[in-house]
Amino acid sequence: MAIDRDLTDPALRGAAVAAAKGTEPFDILIRNATVLDMVTGRERLADIGLVGGLIASVHRPDAAAKAQTEIDATGLHAVPGLIDTHMHIESSMITPAEYSKAAHQRGITTIVWDPHELANVAGLDGMTYALDAARDAPLRILTLAPTCVPSAPGYEVAGGDFDADVIASLLARDDIHGAAELMTMQPLINGEPRVKGIVDAALASGKRICGHARGLSERDLAAFATAGIETDHELSSADDLMARLEAGMTVELRGSHDYLLPDFAKALLSLGHMPQTVTLCTDDVFPDDLLNKGALDHMMRLLMQVDLPVWWVYQAATLNAATRIRRPDLGLIAPGKRADLLLMDDLKTVSSLYVISDGYVIKKPAFDPTVATESPARSTDTGTVHPDDENRPLGDSVKTNLFSPSDFEIAAKGDRARIATLSKPRFPDWGERWVPIHKDVLTLPDDMMRMAIVNRHGQYSPVRVAFMEHWGQWRGAYASTVSHDCHNLTVFGRDSTDMAIAANALRDMDGGSVVVRDGAVIASLALPIAGLISPQSLEQVAAGFAAIRTAMDEVVDWQPPYLVFKALFGASLVCNKGPRLSDVGLVDIFEQRLLERCILETAIDS
Amino acid sequence: MAIDRDLTDPALRGAAVAAAKGTEPFDILIRNATVLDMVTGRERLADIGLVGGLIASVHRPDAAAKAQTEIDATGLHAVPGLIDTHMHIESSMITPAEYSKAAHQRGITTIVWDPHELANVAGLDGMTYALDAARDAPLRILTLAPTCVPSAPGYEVAGGDFDADVIASLLARDDIHGAAELMTMQPLINGEPRVKGIVDAALASGKRICGHARGLSERDLAAFATAGIETDHELSSADDLMARLEAGMTVELRGSHDYLLPDFAKALLSLGHMPQTVTLCTDDVFPDDLLNKGALDHMMRLLMQVDLPVWWVYQAATLNAATRIRRPDLGLIAPGKRADLLLMDDLKTVSSLYVISDGYVIKKPAFDPTVATESPARSTDTGTVHPDDENRPLGDSVKTNLFSPSDFEIAAKGDRARIATLSKPRFPDWGERWVPIHKDVLTLPDDMMRMAIVNRHGQYSPVRVAFMEHWGQWRGAYASTVSHDCHNLTVFGRDSTDMAIAANALRDMDGGSVVVRDGAVIASLALPIAGLISPQSLEQVAAGFAAIRTAMDEVVDWQPPYLVFKALFGASLVCNKGPRLSDVGLVDIFEQRLLERCILETAIDS
Repeated sequence: MAIDRDLTDPALRGAAVAAAKGTEPFDILIRNATVLDMVTGRERLADIGLVGGLIASVHRPDAAAKAQTEIDATGLHAVPGLIDTHMHIESSMITPAEYSKAAHQRGITTIVWDPHELANVAGLDGMTYALDAARDAPLRILTLAPTCVPSAPGYEVAGGDFDADVIASLLARDDIHGAAELMTMQPLINGEPRVKGIVDAALASGKRICGHARGLSERDLAAFATAGIETDHELSSADDLMARLEAGMTVELRGSHDYLLPDFAKALLSLGHMPQTVTLCTDDVFPDDLLNKGALDHMMRLLMQVDLPVWWVYQAATLNAATRIRRPDLGLIAPGKRADLLLMDDLKTVSSLYVISDGYVIKKPAFDPTVATESPARSTDTGTVHPDDENRPLGDSVKTNLFSPSDFEIAAKGDRARIATLSKPRFPDWGERWVPIHKDVLTLPDDMMRMAIVNRHGQYSPVRVAFMEHWGQWRGAYASTVSHDCHNLTVFGRDSTDMAIAANALRDMDGGSVVVRDGAVIASLALPIAGLISPQSLEQVAAGFAAIRTAMDEVVDWQPPYLVFKALFGASLVCNKGPRLSDVGLVDIFEQRLLERCILETAIDS
Repeated sequence: MAIDRDLTDPALRGAAVAAAKGTEPFDILIRNATVLDMVTGRERLADIGLVGGLIASVHRPDAAAKAQTEIDATGLHAVPGLIDTHMHIESSMITPAEYSKAAHQRGITTIVWDPHELANVAGLDGMTYALDAARDAPLRILTLAPTCVPSAPGYEVAGGDFDADVIASLLARDDIHGAAELMTMQPLINGEPRVKGIVDAALASGKRICGHARGLSERDLAAFATAGIETDHELSSADDLMARLEAGMTVELRGSHDYLLPDFAKALLSLGHMPQTVTLCTDDVFPDDLLNKGALDHMMRLLMQVDLPVWWVYQAATLNAATRIRRPDLGLIAPGKRADLLLMDDLKTVSSLYVISDGYVIKKPAFDPTVATESPARSTDTGTVHPDDENRPLGDSVKTNLFSPSDFEIAAKGDRARIATLSKPRFPDWGERWVPIHKDVLTLPDDMMRMAIVNRHGQYSPVRVAFMEHWGQWRGAYASTVSHDCHNLTVFGRDSTDMAIAANALRDMDGGSVVVRDGAVIASLALPIAGLISPQSLEQVAAGFAAIRTAMDEVVDWQPPYLVFKALFGASLVCNKGPRLSDVGLVDIFEQRLLERCILETAIDS
């Protein structure tokens, strides 16, 4: 994180007390703000005096108060800086420095970052990159230790391997905020030694342990919580929400599954209050969504659109979040708290005219002549790395052989084969099908398509191929090194030639995403940092990613809410319920099933 | 505190997970409880499974679940164990072991104890006694480091002297929970080096810093908060309550000033929700009140009587409290939390049939055959010290000379004297009066009475005497070594002979309280531990104290709410606003005034 100014400094406290008393000037005085109080839920007119990184006073408007710099907040609402309690910067495909800029502009002053993707690709080198970047970014980035590297040990091979000892050594660092989302639910509940060791190491550290409780309910959910897991953001229904609240878990409501929000709102409204354990998060935001819709601010607008009271939404994003992440210095506009606050003319827009973090004015309207510019030491120039920078970090991350179309065919002898298939995107089920064998390979039925994964972390293992049902009619191929959670090289398509072209293009680009149609690359986005992140600006990455989306619209007819572009990124998310393809084969960790090949039996006709 | 069972123990977590899953039995299974959920505010039927000190599962009633021991909670409500966020055991005049028993019977499973009185009498020896007692008591006692020893340096002399170095060394201990109520408000706001050093040391420790913000408002309150103080319980109006909530402070609502509760309730009801920063405390409870009315449970009943919703009251006493004292293991009946919970047949009675703390059944109905008795290691035998125990701790605490009636007279030359008087109990003001001088001493006017204080901590300084107005018509004397906050020997009365008899009786008893009328002791309570605490049982101490009260009813006609028995204990509370008598004289720390003698001028008539 940006190194927070030290609020225990006796001189700072002395100066703040003197300013609060009125015997010394404030550094910054925000006059006549309408403060939305996160404790009472009421608004009141107040002056807010800042000294260094502290809010020194919040008092009735007092013309006699003095300050070095004044901000006239007449007509403006003041709220604490927003806190995103669970997210992965990597999903926005930009550097932490670039994310920092975007977040600050949107009033987000603190994020809790699980650099899970970087760790799965680059192991401890990925953590070093993440922690260095978090330290250097102006945004307050609280970095977690990823607990699932890989997310399904034995069922996939990642570029890192974090056992209990690694987790313990990470958690011993001051710049590690806690243990990140524990996704290996069933192994933990079953007492599998590796994951139990990881959780026990986290418990011993005394730091927070975040969770991922997709699909868990009743006794399984209780087992997950009693193992030591505190949080969840994987809600797929209002029942899930209520079950987690009742289990005493901190809920990180997310906007990424926005079709669920009306149900969440209804459930919360029925309680008559916003539970103090509800916080908000973004989890994963694509670069074009970040640019065009926003991050946590977008999530908050969505919640207001489904009629949650404005102050509940802000309370969840500020006070509740601060409390649950154990940062009592954050989340309130009150004396003695850290000076993170926003001024906006309409709370419903979640759009700030002024953003102040740690006492620095990060954003201000161009027209305001009263505010001094921020300290040069606090420049928001994030030093974007140029694509051709020689010192590009975490490069050369696509370690595979060259691909040929035959890599994407499934070899078989005989006339017909009974195969295990993957049925349905997002909530996959096992399927079965008899398919013809032609020239010693399986014939892809007309209603199906192929998914292929190959390890890119130096294993040089065979390409694994699955046939999938209910994934639409594909007219080309898509390949990406962004493929949760091991981010092995993943290819979707019908035609094995298109698929090979896409995979080789990715290899040449050192990672990213690429769309192929009729034998030609029609869109590509290079992500040369770990195959996940671009060194370019958000605007550039968003444009590149939007081009991928547009190209994909030509390749597939999407059928929301399940068959959507986003489903491509989670199709390999082995830790979740149901069958998935990984770099070791077709796997289902809930059923503890692993098929290196999809063929169950073959038959010879005639 | 009773050493909490270690919830980070891998074997414990493993056993809890197995029990939650249903593959192993629970240690204790509470069937068919109606759980009041502190997050949602709703009640639901559930089974609660415990393993060791953990709540392993809270699930829909499931007849198939197995356990070593079962409790049939059909028709009973389950709530988390109650948490008293601010209190002084010494005020109940019993040992921590004895308090522990009383608290547990009343469903209180955690208290935050400021052993401020012991420290003011016995310094670090008092802390050793407190920490040893807290460790040995079955109750979870979170001990704070008293920050005001004495509470008004320079204006009184205590038996201990805790500067910043002492505070830092105390806060470095694992068994010190935080810094106790900082009462030296004006010195802190004025930047007085000693108190600022104490607060800065506490900030550096990273632990909680509790407060006492009596009478502070507006800019002064902001200054107090921005100095680093987090809490307050000194509310004297609903405006005070709202101001502290708006200042982001944790409010510790207390029952000791119960005439304020209707206003507090009205203010909270107008918000439409219970703010998450509201907690409940007892502060000071006399022994007879503890026995007959209760402690935090009494406070909760009072709040329900003024129409606060039942679940708000429990939320404040459990989840809110746990969160604000930074103990995420407490305050909820949920898997993974510490097994502190109560079962009762009517939530409004706050009277528990079962009390479970740290997984031990502390209290159960006599008629219940299904519950195994608690582990012998967890006996509630508190080892009450006998009055004649040779190893009585903190004895010989009344270090004064023998008293004669002349010690309570004010010597003067001349015919008349203009004197400074103390006017009004509880919220004292300065007064002035011309009084006659007869035989070289001031004549006490008919409408006034005397208060006298003498240091009992080895100073052997002169007895200080003040004349007081609006304190009623006294017909005897009262003397005590319980006299906030230095607990010097304090005597009230009209007749100097009665006062000397009372003071000498106290000296002989090694501390306590005594009532004298017409030259004879008519009631006494010995408090030989530091002059504050009796080694006897609560029942015995309550009876002794009740006898003092009854005797005092003969001596004074009380006029509530200000002229009340309790006012005698705070008459020397120098840290508060207004003039008080201390062992150094008449003092007013807000006005920075100190008069060794009350005489302002004398005159000779004729």
